[in-house]
Amino acid sequence: MKMSGGVEWALHCCVVLTASSTPVPAAKLAELHDVSGSYLAKQLQSLARAGLIHSVQGKSGGYVLTRAPESITLLDVVRAVDGPGPTFVCTEIRQRGPFATPADSCTTPCPVARAMWAAEDAWRQALAAVTIADLARDVDTSSGPEAMAGIQTWLTGEKAG
Amino acid sequence: MKMSGGVEWALHCCVVLTASSTPVPAAKLAELHDVSGSYLAKQLQSLARAGLIHSVQGKSGGYVLTRAPESITLLDVVRAVDGPGPTFVCTEIRQRGPFATPADSCTTPCPVARAMWAAEDAWRQALAAVTIADLARDVDTSSGPEAMAGIQTWLTGEKAG
Ligand code: FES
Ligand code: FES
Repeated sequence: MKMSGGVEWALHCCVVLTASSTPVPAAKLAELHDVSGSYLAKQLQSLARAGLIHSVQGKSGGYVLTRAPESITLLDVVRAVDGPGPTFVCTEIRQRGPFATPADSCTTPCPVARAMWAAEDAWRQALAAVTIADLARDVDTSSGPEAMAGIQTWLTGEKAG
Repeated sequence: MKMSGGVEWALHCCVVLTASSTPVPAAKLAELHDVSGSYLAKQLQSLARAGLIHSVQGKSGGYVLTRAPESITLLDVVRAVDGPGPTFVCTEIRQRGPFATPADSCTTPCPVARAMWAAEDAWRQALAAVTIADLARDVDTSSGPEAMAGIQTWLTGEKAG
């Protein structure tokens, strides 16, 4: 089972957006990541549709985070890009064959599905416990002191120093 | 992100196998679940390849669980059928574009990937905490006292009563 590759792009874009106080054009995000603009646009639209970023129109327009990065979790981004549904889908196997449980006795989920969904919930809770602000801090630490500052300067189009 | 539909079949087959003290032919498992034999064979082969079940040859041959159901976890079955790999794949986005982290500085995983994998680990731990024996007990409880006993009788080809 593979998560959509768009999640990695979307998370990195969210981290980059924390570094800018002004809207960042989609083309600039694509250039920064050396990726096709149309591919990245798809991920940005997913984030926008979920209300995590929004686009500001006009000459110095672009994307901004809608909320503080402390209020956007990894779960928000995963749901936006990869979809909100459960990964385990129950097709009601128990209602098949010679020992089928009658449909009207199936008022609660099958114990097999229940166990699978409980495990998924643990994963979602872990995703919900980490925010874009946490990631931005960790990326900043691991990339060294100049990296995010350099990106910030480049994004806002200012001259360094 | 959707898990392979084979996981639901494989889990139900494992639960059924706990009800039989003798090998169960693949055709009988397919009949019990009213599913195509060739489709189910694929899931059973995955379970066998992972060493969770094995086939006994001969006239009264079929599949048996290799270990006690207390020693087979949901994680074992998910890995066998859906593959062992991480669901989040890091393509090293950080090594792209004008602010690329040089490849030889990337000795530890990107903090974004680390956070995603930590969340997956929570899911795997939850899957590893539930066994086929747990499921069999819950299915037995939720299906009523006769269901598993009826299946057991049918599987072993004995007359009821
Ligand atoms: S019927 Fe779907 S998991 Fe049991
Ligand atoms: S480079 Fe892959 S998650 Fe950051």
